[in-house]
Amino acid sequence: MDFLDEPFPDVGTYEDFHTIDWLREKSRDTDRHRKITCKSKESIWEFIKSLLDAWSGWLVMLLIGLLSGTLAGVIDLAVDWMTDLKEGVCLSALWYSHEQCCWTSNETTFADRDKCPQWQKWAELMTGYTEGAGVYLLNYFLYVLWALFFSFLAVSLVRVFAPYACGSGIPEIKTILSGFIIRGYLGKWTLLIKTVTLVLAVSSGLSLGKEGPLVHVACCCGNLFCSLFSKYSKNEGKRREVLSAAAAAGVSVAFGAPIGGVLFSLEEVSYYFPLKTLWRSFFAALVAAFTLRSINPFGNNRLVLFYVEYHTPWYMTTRLGKYPVLEVIVVTGITAVLAFPNPYTRRSTSELISELFNDCGALESSQLCDYINNPNMTRPVDDIPDRPAGPGVYSALWQLTLALVFKIVITIFTFGMKIPSGLFIPSMAVGAIAGRIVGIAVEQMAYHHHDWIIFKNWCRPGADCVTPGLYAMVGAAACLGGVTRMTVSLVVIMFELTGGLEYIVPLMAAAVTSKWVADAFGKEGIYEAHIQLNGYPYLDQDEFTHRTLATDVMRPRRNEPPLAVLTQDSTTVEDVETLIKDTDYNGFPVVVSRESERLIGFVQRRDLILNIKNARQKQDGVVSNSVVYFTEDAPQIPASNPQPLKLRRILNLSPFTVTDHTPMETVVDIFRKLGLRQCLVTRSGRLLGIITKKDVLRHMAHMMNQDPESIMFN
Amino acid sequence: MDFLDEPFPDVGTYEDFHTIDWLREKSRDTDRHRKITCKSKESIWEFIKSLLDAWSGWLVMLLIGLLSGTLAGVIDLAVDWMTDLKEGVCLSALWYSHEQCCWTSNETTFADRDKCPQWQKWAELMTGYTEGAGVYLLNYFLYVLWALFFSFLAVSLVRVFAPYACGSGIPEIKTILSGFIIRGYLGKWTLLIKTVTLVLAVSSGLSLGKEGPLVHVACCCGNLFCSLFSKYSKNEGKRREVLSAAAAAGVSVAFGAPIGGVLFSLEEVSYYFPLKTLWRSFFAALVAAFTLRSINPFGNNRLVLFYVEYHTPWYMTTRLGKYPVLEVIVVTGITAVLAFPNPYTRRSTSELISELFNDCGALESSQLCDYINNPNMTRPVDDIPDRPAGPGVYSALWQLTLALVFKIVITIFTFGMKIPSGLFIPSMAVGAIAGRIVGIAVEQMAYHHHDWIIFKNWCRPGADCVTPGLYAMVGAAACLGGVTRMTVSLVVIMFELTGGLEYIVPLMAAAVTSKWVADAFGKEGIYEAHIQLNGYPYLDQDEFTHRTLATDVMRPRRNEPPLAVLTQDSTTVEDVETLIKDTDYNGFPVVVSRESERLIGFVQRRDLILNIKNARQKQDGVVSNSVVYFTEDAPQIPASNPQPLKLRRILNLSPFTVTDHTPMETVVDIFRKLGLRQCLVTRSGRLLGIITKKDVLRHMAHMMNQDPESIMFN
Repeated sequence: MDFLDEPFPDVGTYEDFHTIDWLREKSRDTDRHRKITCKSKESIWEFIKSLLDAWSGWLVMLLIGLLSGTLAGVIDLAVDWMTDLKEGVCLSALWYSHEQCCWTSNETTFADRDKCPQWQKWAELMTGYTEGAGVYLLNYFLYVLWALFFSFLAVSLVRVFAPYACGSGIPEIKTILSGFIIRGYLGKWTLLIKTVTLVLAVSSGLSLGKEGPLVHVACCCGNLFCSLFSKYSKNEGKRREVLSAAAAAGVSVAFGAPIGGVLFSLEEVSYYFPLKTLWRSFFAALVAAFTLRSINPFGNNRLVLFYVEYHTPWYMTTRLGKYPVLEVIVVTGITAVLAFPNPYTRRSTSELISELFNDCGALESSQLCDYINNPNMTRPVDDIPDRPAGPGVYSALWQLTLALVFKIVITIFTFGMKIPSGLFIPSMAVGAIAGRIVGIAVEQMAYHHHDWIIFKNWCRPGADCVTPGLYAMVGAAACLGGVTRMTVSLVVIMFELTGGLEYIVPLMAAAVTSKWVADAFGKEGIYEAHIQLNGYPYLDQDEFTHRTLATDVMRPRRNEPPLAVLTQDSTTVEDVETLIKDTDYNGFPVVVSRESERLIGFVQRRDLILNIKNARQKQDGVVSNSVVYFTEDAPQIPASNPQPLKLRRILNLSPFTVTDHTPMETVVDIFRKLGLRQCLVTRSGRLLGIITKKDVLRHMAHMMNQDPESIMFN
Repeated sequence: MDFLDEPFPDVGTYEDFHTIDWLREKSRDTDRHRKITCKSKESIWEFIKSLLDAWSGWLVMLLIGLLSGTLAGVIDLAVDWMTDLKEGVCLSALWYSHEQCCWTSNETTFADRDKCPQWQKWAELMTGYTEGAGVYLLNYFLYVLWALFFSFLAVSLVRVFAPYACGSGIPEIKTILSGFIIRGYLGKWTLLIKTVTLVLAVSSGLSLGKEGPLVHVACCCGNLFCSLFSKYSKNEGKRREVLSAAAAAGVSVAFGAPIGGVLFSLEEVSYYFPLKTLWRSFFAALVAAFTLRSINPFGNNRLVLFYVEYHTPWYMTTRLGKYPVLEVIVVTGITAVLAFPNPYTRRSTSELISELFNDCGALESSQLCDYINNPNMTRPVDDIPDRPAGPGVYSALWQLTLALVFKIVITIFTFGMKIPSGLFIPSMAVGAIAGRIVGIAVEQMAYHHHDWIIFKNWCRPGADCVTPGLYAMVGAAACLGGVTRMTVSLVVIMFELTGGLEYIVPLMAAAVTSKWVADAFGKEGIYEAHIQLNGYPYLDQDEFTHRTLATDVMRPRRNEPPLAVLTQDSTTVEDVETLIKDTDYNGFPVVVSRESERLIGFVQRRDLILNIKNARQKQDGVVSNSVVYFTEDAPQIPASNPQPLKLRRILNLSPFTVTDHTPMETVVDIFRKLGLRQCLVTRSGRLLGIITKKDVLRHMAHMMNQDPESIMFN
């Protein structure tokens, strides 16, 4: 594979918004590995270096786990403090959140754990009063003001310093993992700004979550540590193995769900996921979860389990979309103004979900648990029978219905904004609210009509036969499943979140049903939809079932000029330069001669340019008339003639070929499984044309009656 | 794709012990799918048929889940009854197991739940006495006798009716899923005999488990239902998608772990596992788990969770191995004789594991919990501090040590026998015993030396700082992980088994550590080792890192006669027949002419034989001198000449080619990812040679300094 011995540092790298060639990256890595293995026998130092190289994969995983766990912990603490800052301040220590502030106070009982003298609401601090309409309005006003300030700061920072920091990042990471290059998307600057603005955006109270963005943050960490090891920094294929594992670590810290993280990376995000990456992801997710638990941002492992929020990937194009800062301010304003009065939307969404999931034990003081108790009840508290709902439950039902409408509408508008935002928590919240409403309705029906056929066999009077909290949990899983089309990873994340292994069967049933229902509306999940909207060259796993052949897709088409090829021993430097200037192809096939059209290899445009430029500068006698030789030996040439330019070392001697009769489904399969960038088409050994990944994607779009021009990048 | 319009039913099928061509199977399915889609527009009936076809995948999953769940329930019930039959009989109802027998008795208290008058041990029934050395010896003798009878029956049934029913079956299923054909391995006969003999083998008390065999049973169910739908029965590729899902259902019922089953199928068993199969496996596993729970063989969901046993795949070749029946009888005899006196080996292994995992609560009456209580203890029962061990614990330690040695030795010998046998439970038992011993040792150290540095910071006197049960759980996971090299699926199965989500971090750490340690001894898990021992053509996921090229592997080698090829329009029927007689290749490349050697396609040996035979019988004028044409149009021939034979329809016009310079690592990657059977090698459009899957496997064995002849099948 002599074409891999790169003469100049830039040969073999890719340009921005281009697709990598997985087979080539793999070859390069094997080559590197072989060299190290050979060298390791030379000296002890080289042997130690080879050991370090072999373990560097695990080391990178360890570092990713540590850093992303730490960042997640810091983000949790900061969000906690800033969310409370919207309401008031801790006088004993400004950097304490409401809960921490009242922990330090010894005077409080469990019931009054939220009330302590050190914590003062803004209005109280400014006016001295604690009650009254004026105080309420002042608190309301300051709450909205803080929210606007946070969101303004977030959108401005994103706009000025790191435009790539907006959104959840999952569709882009999916595209990057499939082999696309987006420079800077996982850079240090993005990491820094995304971390800071994520805190601001979540604290502002917008209907968005931190889970998707945390996956992006973890991938940025992964990219950062890749740059420390040439094994990963110089090989785009190996780098993507690390990024897959980093995505797993990101979900692991976002939900406190290490197994769910590995499965999410496998099912939803990754493209190539060999078993080796599975083990490494597992390790990274483990370290990250462990680090986060050591930091223990809430002093309460249970709460970490529930501190779940959202991903968002859909960029809706509204008129406001042209003015991103204004858009964020308006949406934040509306969110804050509408959210404050309703208790179910004022609190953080994760607290809401936590309350909706919970069952009404005897200790529960929530409005949702205002049932009319049977005075004769002598049962233990964990076996409360179904009871008629009290007035509190009915008012809670109304508020929940309003909250449901509000959440659905505001989430749709929040998703497209230019700030870090995620989709998980809003979806789960919508599902949980709907589930709880249905659950309470079924419970009351079962109580009042326990002779109906559906309740008859399993719902005797006085029995505890309907658990509204379980309906909320199943609803959350179903809604999230419908949005993302996750199945296995969804169920695992849900039971890692709730600790409820016994509900595995209803959760699985919800996941499968929501997938069926959602698939009936359209096959793609929200991430795929977003990838399509952005025109990324992503080859998804759907089956291609049309009866077209390679010959229908390859270029040149009929009536088009013939394919731009080089010959192995009759092209001059000038010819090559003209070809490069006249076309913008990424590479050129090399044939024996224009008459025989027999293929011998493929050469990259970038490598050609670099080599000719270099030869003209440094190599004596290489002029425009010099003949370019791709053969093994250049013939002896009289000294009067210009010196030949030998370029066999940049020629890929094993280009991928298919025959013109190959069905396109096979071609799509080959592109998908081998991660090709292009493929040459031959018939009986003669070169006929070329198919690039973009051609395949355009053809697929065309076959699905979509606009082929929606595929924008190469 | 005209070569797919099969003129005779047998064209396009594979022979026994051959490898399938995944790309071709996929093409055929797409073709079938297209035809149905076209037809569905013709009439309502066709439309309904196309809907049925689309949903048949989910229907097959439902059927597999139902049948494998039912079979697992029946096996559980039968094993329970027959295991107790070795000790005694229920007088009130002969078909009741010991536990069921005493359930029906109202006289028993919880402590005496195992003692009831209806249940009589054999000696009691025969002699009337319940105690004494003679009674003990008679019970011992009858226990051994029943065990010998069961195992004799099992090995005889396997030997006479279904030799494929022995072992765990997982290595073979892995090989089948990778594309190998073993006819009858998943047949109805195997299903029946394996189910019956599995019950006998487990009941005989041998050190083996039912989990691996249950995977085999579920796959047989999958294969059975495939035959109901031509979509699956006629396409080996689609059939394997169903079998992957069936394997997941098998693990799901074996452990009561549906998610673990899906992951096991993904990580350990399957070869091609697209997302669609993931969803279907998930559904099949769900239905199977649900069915099993509905049957609820133990009347106790908790017990199903623990009723785990073993897989075995290692066929050791002992002298006894030549006499399988004698071997089984001897091993059963030794097992029964040695197991009866030690309480930790007499009971079923799953009960043993369950006891080892459990913590010593206040109610625990086990010998393992014979600690010296502090008389001043006033703590609640779930927070018992570390205590000094009593004499019961010390004698339990000795018995456990003996049981550990016995289990390790007897399991090694049991694995190779010709009866259905699994590996999971013996491995877990060995790990759990070792873990419990270490746990008790650490606990006593911590109690007596709580000032040592390692205990100082977290182990104050009187605190509960060491839980021996957790050590047992981690030990079981580590041992199982070391044997099978599972990671993610292992942890998920462990926590689905134990319901202990909180121990996820130690379990993950154990899985990763045991994988590292085991990998240091050898890269392959027990299933891969078994596949190698049997010489199956399995291309594993290990990376190929040698610097060889396609030209080094292809045949013909130097000094070998040239490649056997057909020409497109100058070979006669007689030439073809001679070629078929003289060679045993599976197919032949077709070239333009022997001079140009330009490749136009590939034709299967089997299809050639069938077509020529058929033409000679039915087609007038086809004689030995007839020219075989693979071109699109045969030229007009004078009536005096023999009629030509047109065979373009059996010609594969898109054979897979690589150049001779292609590195072998790329070739291996292509074979693995695309599931090829063979690949042609060209240079500048000229055909040079051929590489088959067997050539690749031989080359890999050669490069790893193994005997290339160990690859036995094609």
